[in-house]
Amino acid sequence: MASDWATFGADLHLELRGTRLRAGLMDALREAVRSGRLAPGTRLPSSRSLAADLGLARNTVADAYAELVAEGWLTARQGSGTRVARRTAPRPPAAAPPSAGSVRRRPATPVHNLNSGTPDLASFPRADWLKAYRRALTDAPNEAFGYGDPRGRPELRTALAEYLARARGVHARPERIVICAGFVHGLMLIGQVLRARGVRDVAVESYGLDLHDGLLRRAGLGTPVLGFDERGTRTGELAGLDGCGAVLMTAAHQYPLGGALPPDRRAEVVDWARASGGVVLEDDYDGEFRYDRRSVGALQGLDPERVAYLGTASKSLAPGLRLAWMVLPGDLAVEVAETKGAVGWSSSTPDQLAFAEFLRSGAYDRHVRASRLRYRRRRDQLVAAVAAHSPETRVSGIAAGLHAVLALPPGTEQATLRAAAWRGLAVQGVNAFRRPTVPPTLDGLVVGYATPPDSGWQGALGALCGVLP
Amino acid sequence: MASDWATFGADLHLELRGTRLRAGLMDALREAVRSGRLAPGTRLPSSRSLAADLGLARNTVADAYAELVAEGWLTARQGSGTRVARRTAPRPPAAAPPSAGSVRRRPATPVHNLNSGTPDLASFPRADWLKAYRRALTDAPNEAFGYGDPRGRPELRTALAEYLARARGVHARPERIVICAGFVHGLMLIGQVLRARGVRDVAVESYGLDLHDGLLRRAGLGTPVLGFDERGTRTGELAGLDGCGAVLMTAAHQYPLGGALPPDRRAEVVDWARASGGVVLEDDYDGEFRYDRRSVGALQGLDPERVAYLGTASKSLAPGLRLAWMVLPGDLAVEVAETKGAVGWSSSTPDQLAFAEFLRSGAYDRHVRASRLRYRRRRDQLVAAVAAHSPETRVSGIAAGLHAVLALPPGTEQATLRAAAWRGLAVQGVNAFRRPTVPPTLDGLVVGYATPPDSGWQGALGALCGVLP
Repeated sequence: MASDWATFGADLHLELRGTRLRAGLMDALREAVRSGRLAPGTRLPSSRSLAADLGLARNTVADAYAELVAEGWLTARQGSGTRVARRTAPRPPAAAPPSAGSVRRRPATPVHNLNSGTPDLASFPRADWLKAYRRALTDAPNEAFGYGDPRGRPELRTALAEYLARARGVHARPERIVICAGFVHGLMLIGQVLRARGVRDVAVESYGLDLHDGLLRRAGLGTPVLGFDERGTRTGELAGLDGCGAVLMTAAHQYPLGGALPPDRRAEVVDWARASGGVVLEDDYDGEFRYDRRSVGALQGLDPERVAYLGTASKSLAPGLRLAWMVLPGDLAVEVAETKGAVGWSSSTPDQLAFAEFLRSGAYDRHVRASRLRYRRRRDQLVAAVAAHSPETRVSGIAAGLHAVLALPPGTEQATLRAAAWRGLAVQGVNAFRRPTVPPTLDGLVVGYATPPDSGWQGALGALCGVLP
Repeated sequence: MASDWATFGADLHLELRGTRLRAGLMDALREAVRSGRLAPGTRLPSSRSLAADLGLARNTVADAYAELVAEGWLTARQGSGTRVARRTAPRPPAAAPPSAGSVRRRPATPVHNLNSGTPDLASFPRADWLKAYRRALTDAPNEAFGYGDPRGRPELRTALAEYLARARGVHARPERIVICAGFVHGLMLIGQVLRARGVRDVAVESYGLDLHDGLLRRAGLGTPVLGFDERGTRTGELAGLDGCGAVLMTAAHQYPLGGALPPDRRAEVVDWARASGGVVLEDDYDGEFRYDRRSVGALQGLDPERVAYLGTASKSLAPGLRLAWMVLPGDLAVEVAETKGAVGWSSSTPDQLAFAEFLRSGAYDRHVRASRLRYRRRRDQLVAAVAAHSPETRVSGIAAGLHAVLALPPGTEQATLRAAAWRGLAVQGVNAFRRPTVPPTLDGLVVGYATPPDSGWQGALGALCGVLP
């Protein structure tokens, strides 16, 4: 027996070098049990004898045995020595199924990326953010490192109330604001609250993100689809939807088609909410970016008791920060905060304090202003290049946001997308955003012109022009 | 009419000072509509005449009118001038209901805080954390600011795999790790996955946090309760629970009673999982803190395919960071990552990168070591003070973690808690953690000795001794 163990020990020799002898021995023994090299019930050599075989101090081995007994790997009984614990045989560790590595893995990075939904990540203001973070961390009261209010830090809610009133015409009070970890997190919380209230359906627009629609359905809500015409979402259809308790809208800049909801329809959707007791969920994902005029104020300003406003730093700053906010009607603010508290998580408090400092110091305004200039220039270049290369392609939608829609001749979207893929250009068609029940009547590309870094922009634009009809 | 407007303008005078004249006028007009001072249908003065009344440039007024038309507050029709938009009368903004401010608001801060569940927030290593954050933010690739892998940053998963193997005997591979925003977030994700798999029940221990139990029930799961005896949770009862697909355990340090699960029961719970195909959810909330010996390795090491390990920085560092991690069996890792991706949020990537750097640089080890010394000293002082002041009170449980249980004479818990409240001492009784179906057989205090800052510790200890029998 002793010689077997000496062989075993020799196998382990490399791992037993260094100072962490006991830990190394424990790891080796665990691995031997796990792999079946040491079968259940096997009696181990005495600590004295194994120590001699391995050239270790006896206490090192005795301690390792004792720890492994405490962990349940081994058993020690008076008179019966130390044995490998008996239990039902372990299943061999399953190899990860083929999909393990592919969870949401992006396809091989294309040469040019004009997918929409992400700002230019290279322009993240690292130095200014770090400055705000340092200041926030230095000034933070100790309690900021604790669990805290599920609505988020009061410093951030106060700074946001001021900013949103000024920049977006939002009627905001800090106690009505709930910080969340992205728009989707906020929508999930609101969806859960609406469902718990007994709401059956939340209406959605004809074009939008599957992710949002799916999230509402996961919360147990139906998602009837509002029609769409050349003036935008047909808000008049809301009145005909029985059991619809809310509507999700991108009023300032329809995503992805790019129109602004006209004033009479803005009024119509708020009137519907007032008359029916419903709630408008305003997804103001890129409201700060308007190039032809000042931004149209948020719908929420029209009736803070009927419109829930959702904003995010994901487009204006970076999605990686996972910072977003809701400004809610009073009753909804209470219920959403309770729901968020019951599931117990929120964004990191140092991040929240850093963002409050970033807002207060003016760094956010500066960054938004600089981004607006950069994206506006890119949009102008896009419009000019399309006009020069493909006169039959029309840039539709308002001059706003981080993406534009290129309306293509009927029936050409799929062929254009195939040509783009062939050239290593990542870009999406409008039909990727069409709800399944909406008939296909539009052909177009959704061009995320904010996505590439400055160094990649001209190349991406060239590749795009190369695939247009 | 003009004079009315002049009066109205005079009211606004203060707000119209400064450079943001148009924005100020728009705010004032919105407020006037919202409050009803300007009734729907009211015709507004021409921009020329209002500009004259208010001493503004005509364009300022015309621009403000145009923006408010775009936002839906006003309507402009050829020949009919500018009017307040007609719509159903707004409801007066509801006063927030009385509970609005009380959402999860803690009671008035007591003089002494010995509630358990929080480390000493004053000891958060601000300088070291900031150093790690700066380095992480400086070195981060641009793509780190994007949406990213729902499992979390690979840098952090790699650093955690190394740390958990070394410090907790966890069999961890980066692809099996999913970062989450606190233990509760992780438990919620696992609960959703188990429910979707068709699991009906997740067994819980006799004593634990309501929050966890409630979370599982919200996910649609039943929570049968395992019995408890002087050796700890009666894991043998698992075999008799039909339809039970998982068990939530605090094996290293029962929360809150403070025992370590004995080796035979550790083996028993893993054997049950193997035989039944169930999953053990190991809540290793304070595994790094053991004072009388080296920490007992995680249960997960016994069978990585049947034990899901959940760890957190909330006790070792700070809850405010909202950083926690799961090490999951292969199939569960895939499903949990998919579920997390579908609801789309995670912890901020700069924080994840900072924590990876904090681990790699050794700052985490140093902080844990220093905390271990500090909390061990406090526990020793607690034991000594209790022995001196209240010989009939026994400190139960192992020398570990951030809290101790003081076993009180039968029937004295409530009176002791009342005495504590009277003295401004926040502390909880063990019966606050007892599941409703478990008969009350223990009396005791759960003393979170890590909670106060150093400056408050002696005072808190004195107050505690003053209320013991």
